[in-house]
Amino acid sequence: MNKLMIISRQQATYTALLAQQGLPDLTLTDDPAEANVILADPPLIAHTLECFSALAWLQSTFAGIDALIQPDKRQDYQLTNIRGCFGQLITEYVLGYSASHYRHFSQYQRQQADAQWQPHSYRGLAGRVMVILGTGSIGQHLAHAATALGLRAIGVNRSGTAPSESPDAFETIYPISRLADALPQADIVVSTLPATTATNDLLNRDSLQHCREALLFNVGRGNAVCEESLLWALTHNHLAHAVLDVFKQEPLPAAHPFWHHPQITVTPHIAAESFPDQVMAIFADNYRRWHTGSPLCYQIDFQRGY
Amino acid sequence: MNKLMIISRQQATYTALLAQQGLPDLTLTDDPAEANVILADPPLIAHTLECFSALAWLQSTFAGIDALIQPDKRQDYQLTNIRGCFGQLITEYVLGYSASHYRHFSQYQRQQADAQWQPHSYRGLAGRVMVILGTGSIGQHLAHAATALGLRAIGVNRSGTAPSESPDAFETIYPISRLADALPQADIVVSTLPATTATNDLLNRDSLQHCREALLFNVGRGNAVCEESLLWALTHNHLAHAVLDVFKQEPLPAAHPFWHHPQITVTPHIAAESFPDQVMAIFADNYRRWHTGSPLCYQIDFQRGY
Repeated sequence: MNKLMIISRQQATYTALLAQQGLPDLTLTDDPAEANVILADPPLIAHTLECFSALAWLQSTFAGIDALIQPDKRQDYQLTNIRGCFGQLITEYVLGYSASHYRHFSQYQRQQADAQWQPHSYRGLAGRVMVILGTGSIGQHLAHAATALGLRAIGVNRSGTAPSESPDAFETIYPISRLADALPQADIVVSTLPATTATNDLLNRDSLQHCREALLFNVGRGNAVCEESLLWALTHNHLAHAVLDVFKQEPLPAAHPFWHHPQITVTPHIAAESFPDQVMAIFADNYRRWHTGSPLCYQIDFQRGY
Repeated sequence: MNKLMIISRQQATYTALLAQQGLPDLTLTDDPAEANVILADPPLIAHTLECFSALAWLQSTFAGIDALIQPDKRQDYQLTNIRGCFGQLITEYVLGYSASHYRHFSQYQRQQADAQWQPHSYRGLAGRVMVILGTGSIGQHLAHAATALGLRAIGVNRSGTAPSESPDAFETIYPISRLADALPQADIVVSTLPATTATNDLLNRDSLQHCREALLFNVGRGNAVCEESLLWALTHNHLAHAVLDVFKQEPLPAAHPFWHHPQITVTPHIAAESFPDQVMAIFADNYRRWHTGSPLCYQIDFQRGY
């Protein structure tokens, strides 16, 4: 018999969804010492991880598990996250804001408030180059959709090799060591990177100086962008605009300069969200694997950090 | 020898682009009585069409040729318009504003002005149904891209049969006589219709009452939407929002109620524009056909009106 503890802001929703699954040999528990399986929002469990003495497998309800892979945290259990359901939502966000930027939606909104009929010439999205940092399931989904919308997709990852699941998603792949060769080609740069020690401040003054009036998105994790360097890059036209959904500190503090910067769009970490039914589907599938002793999907390698 | 007269707001640009084409047996003229071939913006020539006594072929620089097909206008010449270059631009516009609507871009913009971090739940674009009125090159392009972005595309046209150039672009095609069956399925309705007597006020109270909180786009021609009915449909939740790029009167008069309606987005006829190099490429190709006696591309049937 497995003992599951659910620790989430959406506790009631997950409890109800679990009841519909009919998973074998599984009971719920409220006792941290008893739970061998945990379904949890990483920030809610990160500080009490040591209390779960029977913990064998933790299924994160988030894609981002950085709260659980800090060096001082235990690593004596299997950690899995959720993947595969974010690509669509991130793609809508990135392509929507790209259209908004290049097709002057904000300018027309201001003109409408003044009842002003004034067309502006433009160059649309066709043929623009999107450099996508991270070629996992999100980056692949985005690359496919961007290509269908007439853009060109270039990927950047650790190895410089195409992802085996989707070898044709990207026109070219650069290794991260050649970021300086990829960025000058970009009309649009999108970071989908996870938070790891290797991605800390990856977009800094050294790398951003290679951009040329690019539109920058951060839909991965806030750690990847050096905030001071971002402001510098906007001032020096390496970036035309930044659309940021993730930040080093969330919620973004009220006094932060990003809020009122005319070239920065701030959204409150909504580019993708975990829909509980999708999370529960992943948990149920993984639980069946767990129950039969099969390898779990979406395992996190504590050393790599993703 | 053919005598070409250019009548356009972009006269100088077209003259320069023409010089690069090296078209055989073609000279420019400023004399309306001498020109047998005309490259013109329809509104600029509509009122003087009778002066061109040698007119044999008129190539429109616009897709919209409604100014030239009014019943009182001459029809004793070949009229061609431009097609094929608008699908991409209209698609960016429609999908960009769709993402903006369903993903709350305006709300987040207001929140940013107040440094307010407040996520809102949402349902994205995946699985939403887009009903596209008009299955010509624009409708086909939009249907393909919308499908690639996870939406479902339903077409509506005169015959109810799939366009031969792109038989798989639409999941289903309804004849216009069954508009009332198509509209209740729509999350998004997009009119790409040309201005003809058959499309006048097609979206009126009778048809719009079949919509259910739909997002309506008009990127075709302003004649297709009965403006009073549109306001009625917004009030009665048949429509959630309307994004309008074309109007019965353009520029939209400053006192028009659309400008300040909170559920209407007004843009100044910019969903697509004719880029002169694309127009010249079409003209040059058509001229070579004309010169060799081959049928012209993109001929307008004066009776159908498109």
